[in-house]
Amino acid sequence: MDAAEFRRRGKEMVDFVADYQENIEHRRVYPDVEPGYLRSMIPSEAPLEPESYEDVLRDVDRVIMPGVTHWLSPHFYAYYANSTSFPSILADLLSSGIGTIGFTWAANPACSELETVMLDWLGKMLQLPEDFLSETQGQGGGVIQGTASEATLMALLSARLKTVKCVQESDPQRSEADIISKLIAYTSEEAHSSVEKASIIGGVVIRMVPTDEHFSVRAETLEKMVAEDKATGYIPFFFCATLGTTPCCAFDKIDELGPICNAENIWMHIDAAYAGCAFICPEFRPLLNGVEFADSFSINPNKFLLVGFDCSAIMMWVLKGFYFFLPLHLFSTSLSPHLSSDSQHWGIPMARRFRSLKLWFVFRMYGLRGLQAFIRKHVELAKTFENLVRGDNNFEICAEVVMGLVCFRLKGSDELNKALLKQITRTGKIYLVPCKLRGRFVLRFVVCGRTTELRHIQEAWKHITELSSELLQNLFDHEGKEN
Amino acid sequence: MDAAEFRRRGKEMVDFVADYQENIEHRRVYPDVEPGYLRSMIPSEAPLEPESYEDVLRDVDRVIMPGVTHWLSPHFYAYYANSTSFPSILADLLSSGIGTIGFTWAANPACSELETVMLDWLGKMLQLPEDFLSETQGQGGGVIQGTASEATLMALLSARLKTVKCVQESDPQRSEADIISKLIAYTSEEAHSSVEKASIIGGVVIRMVPTDEHFSVRAETLEKMVAEDKATGYIPFFFCATLGTTPCCAFDKIDELGPICNAENIWMHIDAAYAGCAFICPEFRPLLNGVEFADSFSINPNKFLLVGFDCSAIMMWVLKGFYFFLPLHLFSTSLSPHLSSDSQHWGIPMARRFRSLKLWFVFRMYGLRGLQAFIRKHVELAKTFENLVRGDNNFEICAEVVMGLVCFRLKGSDELNKALLKQITRTGKIYLVPCKLRGRFVLRFVVCGRTTELRHIQEAWKHITELSSELLQNLFDHEGKEN
Ligand SMILES: Cc1ncc(COP(=O)(O)O)c(C=O)c1O
Ligand SMILES: Cc1ncc(COP(=O)(O)O)c(C=O)c1O
Repeated sequence: MDAAEFRRRGKEMVDFVADYQENIEHRRVYPDVEPGYLRSMIPSEAPLEPESYEDVLRDVDRVIMPGVTHWLSPHFYAYYANSTSFPSILADLLSSGIGTIGFTWAANPACSELETVMLDWLGKMLQLPEDFLSETQGQGGGVIQGTASEATLMALLSARLKTVKCVQESDPQRSEADIISKLIAYTSEEAHSSVEKASIIGGVVIRMVPTDEHFSVRAETLEKMVAEDKATGYIPFFFCATLGTTPCCAFDKIDELGPICNAENIWMHIDAAYAGCAFICPEFRPLLNGVEFADSFSINPNKFLLVGFDCSAIMMWVLKGFYFFLPLHLFSTSLSPHLSSDSQHWGIPMARRFRSLKLWFVFRMYGLRGLQAFIRKHVELAKTFENLVRGDNNFEICAEVVMGLVCFRLKGSDELNKALLKQITRTGKIYLVPCKLRGRFVLRFVVCGRTTELRHIQEAWKHITELSSELLQNLFDHEGKEN
Repeated sequence: MDAAEFRRRGKEMVDFVADYQENIEHRRVYPDVEPGYLRSMIPSEAPLEPESYEDVLRDVDRVIMPGVTHWLSPHFYAYYANSTSFPSILADLLSSGIGTIGFTWAANPACSELETVMLDWLGKMLQLPEDFLSETQGQGGGVIQGTASEATLMALLSARLKTVKCVQESDPQRSEADIISKLIAYTSEEAHSSVEKASIIGGVVIRMVPTDEHFSVRAETLEKMVAEDKATGYIPFFFCATLGTTPCCAFDKIDELGPICNAENIWMHIDAAYAGCAFICPEFRPLLNGVEFADSFSINPNKFLLVGFDCSAIMMWVLKGFYFFLPLHLFSTSLSPHLSSDSQHWGIPMARRFRSLKLWFVFRMYGLRGLQAFIRKHVELAKTFENLVRGDNNFEICAEVVMGLVCFRLKGSDELNKALLKQITRTGKIYLVPCKLRGRFVLRFVVCGRTTELRHIQEAWKHITELSSELLQNLFDHEGKEN
């Protein structure tokens, strides 16, 4: 395919994407396929000779589309969103077209530099303390990771290295392996599984901190655990706070937890993957009070800021001074005049796409006000859904609704709620996933779509209540028969 | 921006990308900017109100383009390539347009399933043993990672877990931390720095294995090191072989190394990031003999198979049975009917874009024969360059030319060669980076561009010899004056 054909095919693909997104609400949001559906639909080997582009596109419709869960549908209420937008898609196309692999400054100066500045923009939108910014010429700054999982791992590894160095300063005989075997990390019992995964990768013990009645970690609880562990010879070194937990969007009390972490020399990382995006609105910013005690902070613009996946931003006090965790000799091949712009050392992968273009396009095409308006609309729609649930005596709300997530359930058994979810999934009109809260099976309803409107919320609720009425009626009939 | 505007802007962007790539050879391949050039060219904060798309696009030309190192230029001979192509860009656009985040089967069945099948296609193209394929319903299979660094880390962590389990079977009292503190990994002194980085992340000791005169690791050397380390109480557990090293594209002798690893219970991972792609050509496939002894194998289709970055493929004997390294309780939230299709457990990040579309588009639009032809053309161009170098008495070839990389230098001091590279970089007509071979400063010339032709190679050589003649003349004059 040459440039001339690419012009033609590319424009067709733009129309394909536009058609897809314009008509997406008429598709079944959750696909009606069985595991293994795809293999038999395509050959078992790559073709020897080139095929026609028409055949490939036909197969997108025939093979791919029937098996897609439509994340961008207004009927999609699962997980947290892939909050993408057209400017983000354009920026990604530009990034693919330039085809750069950024890892040193020299590998693409524009890529290195725009990323640094964009994270400063983001830091200012979030009103982060100056030390998290790069422009202040301190040790801080931000870098884009693919996912929150990587951001958390990066924070944990940085904390591990810092602690090893710190312990060895007072006890030079002690081996790194011995110190690591005594390290202990903490996070909420409600935290995302990626925190535990990071601890496994880092080879350190982790303890889950119980939460209060609002699903928040409180200072007292952490303090007690830290004291216990120190008494048995452990070295508490890392606490991952969550702002906006995955199950119910709860918020750890970082303003009380931060001082303890600082006093105990515990690195505090804040995982605000979803909810952190909303801190660009002044009314939500108080939830971030206490960030000044944190060593690192990360959010996923791809979850709530109209930036397409993958894009997770991490800001650290010490990014520049720290050079992540690599020994200096690995820098010898660096060709960059400024070691400090070599993003290869600030993450698990060394190479990266030109992801900052997405931030730049989206921040500029929406403006801060446009992004705030988007967030507020989603929160408002969630409140509407909450009110609908509250107005129905068969249902209950299971956690405070702060942003775009509503946790709810049918009053009754877990089995009943599982049956309801099964019906919802089978019908395929809307898509949600469950969570466990205090051991109970709960449905999560997250406003995800960029194009989700009031009518979708109302339709979704109507659909849920119709299915639940049927269920309850069946149950009633069944119980009637049994008695 | 609504769908109607996206249609318009998207088509403009397609033309922008086509124009960029069509005219790329007239651009200065290495940018003429100083570190920090960008910050002052754009505002220090995000705008409050939306800006116009025209302004954003204008700034792409004004701010971004002057600072881009043009990886897709035929004058780009640095690193290893971002081997992208138009079909790959189209697939990426489709992936952005669908906007899925794959991590469980349910999150997007098509994404999970196409990935599995595409890695089977790739495995067959490479003639990997059946155990690396998923279709055989064994424990093996493949998964796409973002980068080779992640693939290597994943292999090392899998090996770490396997070894811990294995040691604990015979010695249940021994703690995981204690075992990990005794683990020792090996890789070539010529290996990519990501292997050492993986060992640092995994918290294990690594030893660099010296190479023979062809820069290859040999069985004898590894065997001796393993014996030494066992004698001092270490547990050898991981060997990362390289097929196609970064500095000079050397090949470890995996057919002799494999049996030792198998006998010693050492996980052998093969990092064939660049050169592995060429194993789809029968004439290069013998270099992969011995893969049957390996536990895992990875290549980057983005380095030499016309697939755009990021895309690194890892195949493992034990992918399915192993579930990476996560404890089972983390699976409790999985909604997938087939745990084994949940790619979230097969990598550092749990979430992924729909990357298999790129493989599918490229494999089909080129066909195996087309991909082979592409590889052969690059190798031939490299041979041409080698012959030009060999024909000039001022220069020497520093390592055997097997694929698209030629290592060469001016006969003379490192300083002379550094001066030459400095001139090349300053002139900005072509771009290369150096390496060290046996302590000497060497220039690497890698055929990278999809559109690089014979005339570019000839021009590049002419340019290099012109610059070197000037240098040598200056040196001569200077020495003349001194005498
Ligand atoms: C609070 C929180 N942290 C981390 C993650 C994981 O995000 P990622 O897929 O970017 O690793 C999630 C996902 O929903 C999350 O809600
Ligand atoms: C042999 C080898 N392994 C690994 C890498 C790192 O690749 P990635 O950037 O995909 O992590 C390279 C990069 O050139 C390489 O040559």
